[in-house]
Amino acid sequence: MKDVEDIHRPMLNSLQSTSAKMKKIVLSVNAGSSSVKISAYSALFGQAPIQLAEAQISGLTAPPPTLRYTRHGEKVINDEEIKDQKVSTQADAFDILVKALIDDNGVPEISSKEDIAYICHRIVHGGDFVRPKLISDETYHNLEKLNDLAPLHNSTSLVIVHRCMSDMPKTTFNIACFDSQFHHTIPEHIRTYPINQDIARNNHLRKYGFHGISYAFITRATAEFLGKKVEDVNIIALHLGSGASACAIKGGKSLDNSMGLTPLAGLPGATRSGSVDPSLVFHYASDVGKLSPASTKDLHISRAEEILNKQSGWKALTGTTNFGTITAALDPSSSDTTSHLSPEEVAKMRLAFDIFVERICAFIGSYYVSLQGQVDALVFAGGIGEKSDRLRAAVVEQVSCLGFGPVDKEANETRVKEELDDSHDVIEIAPPNSKKGKRDGREHRVLVCKTDEQFEMARACAEDGEFWR
Amino acid sequence: MKDVEDIHRPMLNSLQSTSAKMKKIVLSVNAGSSSVKISAYSALFGQAPIQLAEAQISGLTAPPPTLRYTRHGEKVINDEEIKDQKVSTQADAFDILVKALIDDNGVPEISSKEDIAYICHRIVHGGDFVRPKLISDETYHNLEKLNDLAPLHNSTSLVIVHRCMSDMPKTTFNIACFDSQFHHTIPEHIRTYPINQDIARNNHLRKYGFHGISYAFITRATAEFLGKKVEDVNIIALHLGSGASACAIKGGKSLDNSMGLTPLAGLPGATRSGSVDPSLVFHYASDVGKLSPASTKDLHISRAEEILNKQSGWKALTGTTNFGTITAALDPSSSDTTSHLSPEEVAKMRLAFDIFVERICAFIGSYYVSLQGQVDALVFAGGIGEKSDRLRAAVVEQVSCLGFGPVDKEANETRVKEELDDSHDVIEIAPPNSKKGKRDGREHRVLVCKTDEQFEMARACAEDGEFWR
Repeated sequence: MKDVEDIHRPMLNSLQSTSAKMKKIVLSVNAGSSSVKISAYSALFGQAPIQLAEAQISGLTAPPPTLRYTRHGEKVINDEEIKDQKVSTQADAFDILVKALIDDNGVPEISSKEDIAYICHRIVHGGDFVRPKLISDETYHNLEKLNDLAPLHNSTSLVIVHRCMSDMPKTTFNIACFDSQFHHTIPEHIRTYPINQDIARNNHLRKYGFHGISYAFITRATAEFLGKKVEDVNIIALHLGSGASACAIKGGKSLDNSMGLTPLAGLPGATRSGSVDPSLVFHYASDVGKLSPASTKDLHISRAEEILNKQSGWKALTGTTNFGTITAALDPSSSDTTSHLSPEEVAKMRLAFDIFVERICAFIGSYYVSLQGQVDALVFAGGIGEKSDRLRAAVVEQVSCLGFGPVDKEANETRVKEELDDSHDVIEIAPPNSKKGKRDGREHRVLVCKTDEQFEMARACAEDGEFWR
Repeated sequence: MKDVEDIHRPMLNSLQSTSAKMKKIVLSVNAGSSSVKISAYSALFGQAPIQLAEAQISGLTAPPPTLRYTRHGEKVINDEEIKDQKVSTQADAFDILVKALIDDNGVPEISSKEDIAYICHRIVHGGDFVRPKLISDETYHNLEKLNDLAPLHNSTSLVIVHRCMSDMPKTTFNIACFDSQFHHTIPEHIRTYPINQDIARNNHLRKYGFHGISYAFITRATAEFLGKKVEDVNIIALHLGSGASACAIKGGKSLDNSMGLTPLAGLPGATRSGSVDPSLVFHYASDVGKLSPASTKDLHISRAEEILNKQSGWKALTGTTNFGTITAALDPSSSDTTSHLSPEEVAKMRLAFDIFVERICAFIGSYYVSLQGQVDALVFAGGIGEKSDRLRAAVVEQVSCLGFGPVDKEANETRVKEELDDSHDVIEIAPPNSKKGKRDGREHRVLVCKTDEQFEMARACAEDGEFWR
């Protein structure tokens, strides 16, 4: 789906600038708490970008940090330890990644910082922003304000935005791409919390929804796979990674997302509780309303938010943040890695797995009703969604009463592993269930999608005429 | 269903006590924040109790308080103002109600306090208790400890329990009936929160579920209506009142409930937010972690819990706590009462209605999947469940994709109003949908049930051999 797309051709014609007719370099930046990833694309206005290289530094919170570098889809550096340079912040990591890109003779398009036209920054919480935003001094100030709403999620990106604003050439545009923007179509009765509405308005308290950059990609890829227009597809999408969410997409637009005011609500994750009784934390410890030691003069993070975001989830249940370790413990054939586990430890792993399946299925049932049963596909994505055949099989079995499945064992266990890559970004694991599924022509298929937030940001940049004037 | 039931006949035979063969008076007490209700029954061990009288004082928090008194199903006193007596606490109200009962010559069975053999107290949070409990000095101490977990919900009942322990004859047994006990069958992967498990264990942090006394009644009434054994029915039940919840019942036992550690989680209510992003309150005001002025030396209620339990829900969205006012505003034919509303006010009412329908339907979808589609009936109960035909119609329409409905207009709008009473406690509003519904012999019927927590407590007392030795 990434090479033959002509977007907004009429808009292109109306643009006067020659800029719009030139190939430009777009850099997509994705900063997590422990890693920074950049992807470089060659882009023409209105066309799908083409990836040149990708570089990632991992292990920022678990040193030593390591570097991975891929050129034209081929691994050049594979998790090499970074020894000679200081990498204490996300901004340090970003500098090293950009230097690696510039120094690589295999990518002649980028030989200096000046060659980079656009840097797209993934920002988790975009507040009321409904589309990507050029970052000026003023916008940056607005981004800082948003940080109050989601300090645990936005601050890592802001560190890099700040570095780019000061260190990159003035000719390089910084663009903020928000994980919440895809969800601006969530209707009022779904996004409103039943709390004091004056306070809700003043403090911007509503459901925003997240993982939207990924859901935009998933929606487009699914539509293309199904041979439908984006505005015609209804899907239930699952982005399951160390942060996990579910999304109901109706006519190509977000109808609901399991995350809320912040990414904490909804499904549990690696260190995140997901939804709990809102009064739970007040029975957890007496100091949960106080500020966490991680707070700064400008950023206030309550102990409660820190506990529920950073000290819960799989980590609290099992000791590991790696869902692969959990599923391996349940698989008798992978006894190599897990034979050291006691029955009690295996039981903990099973509990974590069962909790995740149960809560995912609860959202599928709920969104099935929101979409009134008119569902083209259930789509798995994200690290766990791509990798865990066991999870996919368990979920699809549990929702078989809605007409999904049964899963094709070979497709689920082998084809996804072998064929899901940049040229095949969707694999079908359960064909249309003509007997049970199909409601109003929608076939309840089950798909796995290799989502690509980096590409989606570059694509959004390439299709937005405002950035190309 | 209340008159021909023979329960535990074998157990009765094994009891030596003559006590078990005598008729006894059972009093059921239900204390809310603003009202106290007592119902008196004549009961034989193992038989369904027969109601003698019912008395209620309302308006405790909105004086003047009023008294209602019903004898053998006939209204004797109808919301009369109480002028000559002090009614400042739930315990005061209880004393007045018991005196009214004793003074009533129409109920000769109760002519002094000594005639009352059992007093069943509805206690919201029962912690790990899985069945009704005789209240001794030691049990009372345990109940006080539970109060820490749900001070906003348990303390009103405890005031009356305490009064009974000191003022009632020693021959009167006090029995605690817990709203959480019905839910002790919720499996581990549904009741566990993904948080630190040592803290969860030590602080008793898990999903408990509530409205269980009502769900026990609903389950039995539904089974009888369907002509099935209790242990064979799978239902999705909705207890919708000023507090509202949904429940998945599998084989007659609770599989899941929308409430959690406390009644706050799940659906919104009159003054309750229901589930919100757990980090929301920390963005609501800076002092939410502090103690509320309603706290005492022994009872700690955070500002956050007070806001989410007492200052949210319909009240925050619309200004009224009465859901009837909300539906009336949406009904053009009831323009008498609502013609004074501005379009903005009507929009607020509609938003509240739509939020409620959406969230109820989300739980129905989720529980449909938990029950793997094998659902005998969707059952509406509680004040709103019984009264709001508009809400029932909207919900059933939204879940028609699961095979429920369509609603029979006459049954929904007229028969429920005219026929739902003590002798007809279940009315069918949508017949089996043979085409879409029916999964493994279960017909997806839609019912309205007049639930009766008072009766259910008396019944539980009458069937428990331990209390009759």
